[in-house]
Amino acid sequence: MNQVQTALKALIEDETSFALPPETNDFSEDDWAWLLESLVSEQRILIWPFLKNIDTTAVLAGMREDARLQLVSSLPNKSVHKALANSDASQVIEVLDVLPTSVAKKFIKKLSKETQNHIRESLNYTDDQVGRYANHNVFTVNKSASVESILSELKSVDLPEYTDTFLVTDEQNIFIGEITINELFSAEPQDLVANIAKTSVHIVNADLPLLDASNLLKSTKKSMLPVVTETGELLGRFDINDALEIFQEHYEAQIAHLGQVSDEDLFAPVALSARRRAVWLGINLLTAFMASIVIGIFDKVVAEVVALAVLMPIVASMGGITGSQTLTLTIRGLATGQLGINNVSSLKRKEIAVAAINGVAWSLLVAIITGFWFENIALSIIIAGALIVNMLVAALFGILIPVTLDRMKIDPALAGSVILTTVTDIVGFFVFLGAASLILI
Amino acid sequence: MNQVQTALKALIEDETSFALPPETNDFSEDDWAWLLESLVSEQRILIWPFLKNIDTTAVLAGMREDARLQLVSSLPNKSVHKALANSDASQVIEVLDVLPTSVAKKFIKKLSKETQNHIRESLNYTDDQVGRYANHNVFTVNKSASVESILSELKSVDLPEYTDTFLVTDEQNIFIGEITINELFSAEPQDLVANIAKTSVHIVNADLPLLDASNLLKSTKKSMLPVVTETGELLGRFDINDALEIFQEHYEAQIAHLGQVSDEDLFAPVALSARRRAVWLGINLLTAFMASIVIGIFDKVVAEVVALAVLMPIVASMGGITGSQTLTLTIRGLATGQLGINNVSSLKRKEIAVAAINGVAWSLLVAIITGFWFENIALSIIIAGALIVNMLVAALFGILIPVTLDRMKIDPALAGSVILTTVTDIVGFFVFLGAASLILI
Repeated sequence: MNQVQTALKALIEDETSFALPPETNDFSEDDWAWLLESLVSEQRILIWPFLKNIDTTAVLAGMREDARLQLVSSLPNKSVHKALANSDASQVIEVLDVLPTSVAKKFIKKLSKETQNHIRESLNYTDDQVGRYANHNVFTVNKSASVESILSELKSVDLPEYTDTFLVTDEQNIFIGEITINELFSAEPQDLVANIAKTSVHIVNADLPLLDASNLLKSTKKSMLPVVTETGELLGRFDINDALEIFQEHYEAQIAHLGQVSDEDLFAPVALSARRRAVWLGINLLTAFMASIVIGIFDKVVAEVVALAVLMPIVASMGGITGSQTLTLTIRGLATGQLGINNVSSLKRKEIAVAAINGVAWSLLVAIITGFWFENIALSIIIAGALIVNMLVAALFGILIPVTLDRMKIDPALAGSVILTTVTDIVGFFVFLGAASLILI
Repeated sequence: MNQVQTALKALIEDETSFALPPETNDFSEDDWAWLLESLVSEQRILIWPFLKNIDTTAVLAGMREDARLQLVSSLPNKSVHKALANSDASQVIEVLDVLPTSVAKKFIKKLSKETQNHIRESLNYTDDQVGRYANHNVFTVNKSASVESILSELKSVDLPEYTDTFLVTDEQNIFIGEITINELFSAEPQDLVANIAKTSVHIVNADLPLLDASNLLKSTKKSMLPVVTETGELLGRFDINDALEIFQEHYEAQIAHLGQVSDEDLFAPVALSARRRAVWLGINLLTAFMASIVIGIFDKVVAEVVALAVLMPIVASMGGITGSQTLTLTIRGLATGQLGINNVSSLKRKEIAVAAINGVAWSLLVAIITGFWFENIALSIIIAGALIVNMLVAALFGILIPVTLDRMKIDPALAGSVILTTVTDIVGFFVFLGAASLILI
């Protein structure tokens, strides 16, 4: 892929005659999505018209949401419309969902009646629910058909990807059940579908959250599941590739939030990127000022014993790391559902024990180094005590904060680490400087 | 699932008569793995003997590596042996890989000859390569067979999960090609497999890294791919569920490392957990002391102008967040392969521009607040300047550090944030206190 980037770069810089490098001839839609994301905006727009004989809506849908938004909003309307014209509604929706509703509506109007109908159905569901993105490209068999007729139909049909099951419906498109490929092979030609279809099967309710649907599909070890509406109608299917992308998006968003950044395009516009990150920086500034105020309370002792100013980052940062370790584990436990009211107290006991061991061990080392450095035994004792207290508090809050956020239906991965750092900074400075002001002056 | 935990807890606490709650009757292996991970060690061992009519090796293989290690090493050898006896080699290897080699060897000796052979083949590959975990449960067809004979064979065969393709081999088990289900349906009964099999198909080389194989499988939109050795032999298959688990492990490890913790079991033993986390705490302490030394250099000015001690955490933490934002984006770009020599300078330009905008904006605000708080214009100018410098340096190093680590073949997600924090702390304190000592005294 790297060679393609290099070849493309040379061609773009050449400027006289542009053509795509031959390596891109057998590029899939996902390959194109990957390549476009690695280019800066102007280059993306430059090569877009050269994407031919390829489902460009799938390319857009395959891009990260933010990169997709950048590209779609900078392409001429005509190009976007051309891309959307012949695509499956589920992918059209993915593309249009990044646009403002009024703009999206204009594009929808120009689509085929069938696609418009699919889109109308999809819009009954939120962008967090399976129904919105259900893939309509499904091979269904009618319950009154015979095995023989299906087998003969299959001779001329191109099965969609990930078809390991044939979905059975009635004339009103009500979902009846399924026949696995295995079962179809072992059936007799004259058998009726209605008689051999399994009716008690895993289905995905159209209003199920995407992440839950992904977990369900994974645990069933099937390649796809039928998406069924409240009234029992077959809306479409949800396949293992969809699940894989949901998981990837979920984890990438978590990682982005832990890094205090939105899940942004590598080459998002500078102004937009600066504005988005300013939110995180502003929150951080607020918490930093809170820590400053705590230090300010004890400015007399700091002025008198300047070693306190030298050492105070150690107390705060060791608490920060201890808390972050517990927080990370707790957030994962909440996300997998493995941590709940039944075992949170067991986790508390364990984490506090771990923090106590490390607190005592490291505070001893810090006390010794401090003793040699500043030749002040009282200071050694104060920093050791402050470290132990802060690390214990950190472990406790590393559990309490995410558990509380989770109960308040706030994503712990989003806000947890900022709140925790505030706690460990404030407690660290307060205990360390507070003890110093009591003992040293 | 939560109800199962509650029911189980009540039963465990009852202690008189133990039986599994009825909800677990239709538990899959993955459900059991999930449940066991959510229990503390003693409970895991308590309920293990009650797992009946279930592939317990698959349960173990489905658990997180660390939890698996804890459980396997605390179960009696007899239980482990019983679990492994009738399982597929790929899952036996997953379980034994967490044990010391000498212990693993003892278990291997007692397995069936066929499994031992499979294991011997697998051990030719490292625990990072597909060959080691190739699933041997594959339905293959011989190239000299006719379509008719396959169809009749399929009547009585249970196809493995995720079979969307029939793999074709010759008598020596050399991989020849594949027939999709679609192609099999449209073939004539008397066609020979050799004539209709596609020979130019996607395969996974057995020595391919697991993550690359997962990406390949995803991009092909197939449910599984054949795993082929250097000599062309069919070793087994790699399916989309394997890929999904590889991705999950990959992301969970990244998240754990960003939280400065190993990817540990929720209920790992306290001593082990404390030891593992001590490594991260020790590294952090080292960097915290480096920051302290920098502050120590300027202890005179800090003693004279105590406002410096009050404000210095702001400079360090705003730099830290700015750097972490750039670092997060850079690490993702490197992981997806989208960031390389061709576009790293474009990213540098963008990130520095973003940092400059936010640096100027926030330093202005901080200068104003500082001015009102300490009524010292020189101090306002110093902190504003230090903030801008530190945020620019942070953005630059947010790219340089992971790119350099990546070139040195060190995982940037593992060490990147620690090194970056060290840089932003030291630069922040040095610039802020250094400028203060030049200007204020």
